[in-house]
Amino acid sequence: MLSDNWEVLATKAQSIYQNSLEKSLKLVNFDKALGQKYNELPSAKGETTKDYGSPTKHPFQLYLKTVPQSVLDITEKEPVDLLTDLKNGKFTCVEVLKSYMTAAIIASKLTNCVQEYLPDEALEYAEYLDRNHETMKDLPLYGLPFSIKEMIPFIGRAVTHGSLCYLDRIVDYNADIVNILKKNGAYPFVRTTNPQSLMMLECVSYAHGRTVNSFNSELTSGGSSGGEGVLNGLYASPFGLGSDIGGSIRSPAAFNGIYGLRSTLGRLPTADYFSCNRGSESILSVTGPLSRSLETIDLVMKTIIDSKPWLIDPTLAPIEWKHTKQDKFRIGIMVSDNIVNPSPPVKRALNIVQEKLSELGNFELVPFEPFQHERTMPILGKLYFEDGGRDFKATLSSTGEPLLVQTSWAIDGAKDLEMHEQWYYNLEKQKYRKEYLQYWVDKYTDKDGHILDAVIAPVFPNVAPKHETSKYWGYTCQWNLLDYPVLVFPVTTVDENLDHPLAEYKPLNEIDEYFYKQYDDAKSFAKAPVNLSLIGLRNTDEKLIEIGKILRQEIGDTHFCFKKVK
Amino acid sequence: MLSDNWEVLATKAQSIYQNSLEKSLKLVNFDKALGQKYNELPSAKGETTKDYGSPTKHPFQLYLKTVPQSVLDITEKEPVDLLTDLKNGKFTCVEVLKSYMTAAIIASKLTNCVQEYLPDEALEYAEYLDRNHETMKDLPLYGLPFSIKEMIPFIGRAVTHGSLCYLDRIVDYNADIVNILKKNGAYPFVRTTNPQSLMMLECVSYAHGRTVNSFNSELTSGGSSGGEGVLNGLYASPFGLGSDIGGSIRSPAAFNGIYGLRSTLGRLPTADYFSCNRGSESILSVTGPLSRSLETIDLVMKTIIDSKPWLIDPTLAPIEWKHTKQDKFRIGIMVSDNIVNPSPPVKRALNIVQEKLSELGNFELVPFEPFQHERTMPILGKLYFEDGGRDFKATLSSTGEPLLVQTSWAIDGAKDLEMHEQWYYNLEKQKYRKEYLQYWVDKYTDKDGHILDAVIAPVFPNVAPKHETSKYWGYTCQWNLLDYPVLVFPVTTVDENLDHPLAEYKPLNEIDEYFYKQYDDAKSFAKAPVNLSLIGLRNTDEKLIEIGKILRQEIGDTHFCFKKVK
Repeated sequence: MLSDNWEVLATKAQSIYQNSLEKSLKLVNFDKALGQKYNELPSAKGETTKDYGSPTKHPFQLYLKTVPQSVLDITEKEPVDLLTDLKNGKFTCVEVLKSYMTAAIIASKLTNCVQEYLPDEALEYAEYLDRNHETMKDLPLYGLPFSIKEMIPFIGRAVTHGSLCYLDRIVDYNADIVNILKKNGAYPFVRTTNPQSLMMLECVSYAHGRTVNSFNSELTSGGSSGGEGVLNGLYASPFGLGSDIGGSIRSPAAFNGIYGLRSTLGRLPTADYFSCNRGSESILSVTGPLSRSLETIDLVMKTIIDSKPWLIDPTLAPIEWKHTKQDKFRIGIMVSDNIVNPSPPVKRALNIVQEKLSELGNFELVPFEPFQHERTMPILGKLYFEDGGRDFKATLSSTGEPLLVQTSWAIDGAKDLEMHEQWYYNLEKQKYRKEYLQYWVDKYTDKDGHILDAVIAPVFPNVAPKHETSKYWGYTCQWNLLDYPVLVFPVTTVDENLDHPLAEYKPLNEIDEYFYKQYDDAKSFAKAPVNLSLIGLRNTDEKLIEIGKILRQEIGDTHFCFKKVK
Repeated sequence: MLSDNWEVLATKAQSIYQNSLEKSLKLVNFDKALGQKYNELPSAKGETTKDYGSPTKHPFQLYLKTVPQSVLDITEKEPVDLLTDLKNGKFTCVEVLKSYMTAAIIASKLTNCVQEYLPDEALEYAEYLDRNHETMKDLPLYGLPFSIKEMIPFIGRAVTHGSLCYLDRIVDYNADIVNILKKNGAYPFVRTTNPQSLMMLECVSYAHGRTVNSFNSELTSGGSSGGEGVLNGLYASPFGLGSDIGGSIRSPAAFNGIYGLRSTLGRLPTADYFSCNRGSESILSVTGPLSRSLETIDLVMKTIIDSKPWLIDPTLAPIEWKHTKQDKFRIGIMVSDNIVNPSPPVKRALNIVQEKLSELGNFELVPFEPFQHERTMPILGKLYFEDGGRDFKATLSSTGEPLLVQTSWAIDGAKDLEMHEQWYYNLEKQKYRKEYLQYWVDKYTDKDGHILDAVIAPVFPNVAPKHETSKYWGYTCQWNLLDYPVLVFPVTTVDENLDHPLAEYKPLNEIDEYFYKQYDDAKSFAKAPVNLSLIGLRNTDEKLIEIGKILRQEIGDTHFCFKKVK
């Protein structure tokens, strides 16, 4: 852990980014016109990582105007189809890498979503694949670059998970999941931003500044896998890897209109990721892919699990990735958790989904009442930082790095627990898990024994909120406490003509009132995507993908890029 | 938690036993001759639970002389065959219950292995099954009584797990696993003894006294599932349920010459069992069956897992119980953990197994070097009692119950950890698990990619040791730390002509010297069974059963009862 002054380190972090950017610019070799366009783009990055830049209001519009069509022809292709082109030799791996690198460079200038580019390593691997096209082209992910959240170990790079004191923690290995993906033909090309402490549904740190939403820079990217959400939201990565202990895959996926899977603990290797509080086992973080392409998420999951990762990571269960055909689905609809009610666009999205699914003959929809969700935060509030935040605070105090507003909010109420207090909260957790399972099975199974397949619910009380206001995790961390897998999926975007704030409203409580007031005007949230959660019992990840595919078919792809390319 | 004087409670515990015994005697209704025989049996139970009785030296001999042949005809039948008889109506369920109850009453007088009989509940269920023979006879375990370790919740009974202060903790539910077995036609008929704190490889408590070995009462029964080991060792139960956090299924199974399966965490419901340190999650206890019948263990596992227990217990993984045919096996032989070398009979057992398996064409045997087993106890020594034993000590101090020698030894070195210390030892555990898996896979996989299927190793440095001397857990707790499933299986019994102590020996260390000296003479261990461990990677429980079946076929059944009945 470094003890240099944090401002010196912030400058150093900036120069690490800058160096990797310059190398990447050489790799992609912009022509003069594109170079000029690029230089003139408003930057979401400040002078140093202590400052914020002045991003354009709607990054994706400028992104699409800037990225050359020849690049878009590759990057906006459905990644599963791109794989076919790569295998067939229609594109070389280096061509695809250069396209995605171009896209990422432009995306990051507009949104500050990349922590560090990996041009050398990526190029080396792409060239290696091209040289061995004949023998390697049958690898399931042949030639696909992907993005990784900064906290995921990558050989030869510092892993800070948003704390400057770790800027010298150069790891000498790749995360298991990175190695597995490389063996299967995919390789990381950028490392994306994550916030201080990783414990916020936004993405701000002194290691990178602030990542802004890809649709509306006045709104948050979500977090902690904020960089992933934005980069994938702009289609500037075929897929990425995030991690989630309270909503960190789901909020950025939702706020940027893409898919994100919080997989069940024990399906994917996560144990070697970095974060604070290592060794704390009461609540565990889990990894999962983010992508605008559900097929790609499916393929990535299948590829990793087919490799038998349980022979590498002892925390995993040997459960194969297996789709089973199902004729009929029974789905619960949870409109509110009865703590914070969703905003008008979120309610509208729930209506859209209900309407579409109820038209199908094989979907039975039932109202799902949340089971005592008010028990969740009192347990998690203690177990997230069971040392009272000492470990995390030490990462700041060593360099004098200031505590950010959102981090401060997250650790508020944490207490350095003595052993029996930890056990007490663990027992509360165990009890609640058991009761919830019983509730789900006993109350919602139909008379033919068909168990509820999934529940559709909000991801957050609102669409992407304004910066520094995402102060409620209930809709996401609920499922971390229970360790239920969740797929977030896009439904629509905010509609200024339809999503008017409620004129009259009697708030349920203080936090509900806070959120009610936040949704002041649909204009504030212009163009923001509206996603929902699809939640299943433990280890039903495959089923969520299946249902997700049906939902997409019914709702249609609403993402701007998809529409445009179509 | 009661605060009455412990001696008063000890008397109360004795009278609970006595009452249940008297009811059971009425149920089985001994004729005059048997009644007299029974009254004259030397008792392993003292006047109160503070005293020890004066058991006969070799309980099984007297057991066989006492139990009427008509009872043995039922109790010594392979339980899987008995099931066929029950289904066919050759025996009624009540007949079978009465036979097993007779056997258990006699077994317990000789060894003090029953904590409490369940005559009323068992009879009620047996009669219910008989009345519904036609509709229920196809249940996989139709009519089979079974025994449960005292710490397993059984409705309407006090669960003490060996601490008198809990004598008023009457539970109002059955453990999930008990409910599942009942739904499948089996039902508990006795609760078996477990020791103070559950943390010893012996079985002594002020709630029952001392349980002695079924083969040689000068030796320990093993523990903590001591009562199960002995009752099943005498064939006085078709199967039983124990629990294991450091060897508690395996040592009693091994010391009494039967099979015992320490299943992988997440296969069987255990979370609702009672013990000290509830809420401590760093090292978890796991349940599993003990039986002289490997087919019964297989059937019980299959029945429970086929019931989808993961829809009841949220800690379980949805992994089906599935045997896969395998033509070739690759087995490691670990002769010593390099900390305490095994005694002569244990080494001989290893030789027998090696010899038999090497004669088979489809078994490849490789020497297996233990991977740094010296790292295990320093981690477990902290994580077993991460509160420094406070929780456990409180159970004694409330009533003044004295700390037993073996418990005292077990908690020696425990420390009330602060949160970062716990995290430190959790990380040490995680690191070791990962390195061990890598070692197993990388070092022992053959050139065709065939991973080592299992390792055969001692269960303990010796056969059942003398009372109060089982002061080394390394051969069992090693696999708890790694969460590897282990099947212990019988190989032979101590042979006075073959198993001479080593005349010359240079001990590896102090504890090795202690064990060397303990094995003073084969006569001290006369008739003691010699079992071994079969260890697999996580979730290979089925494979262990498969290999166990081949081993049995090759070694032959060595258990006295089996031989006699044959």
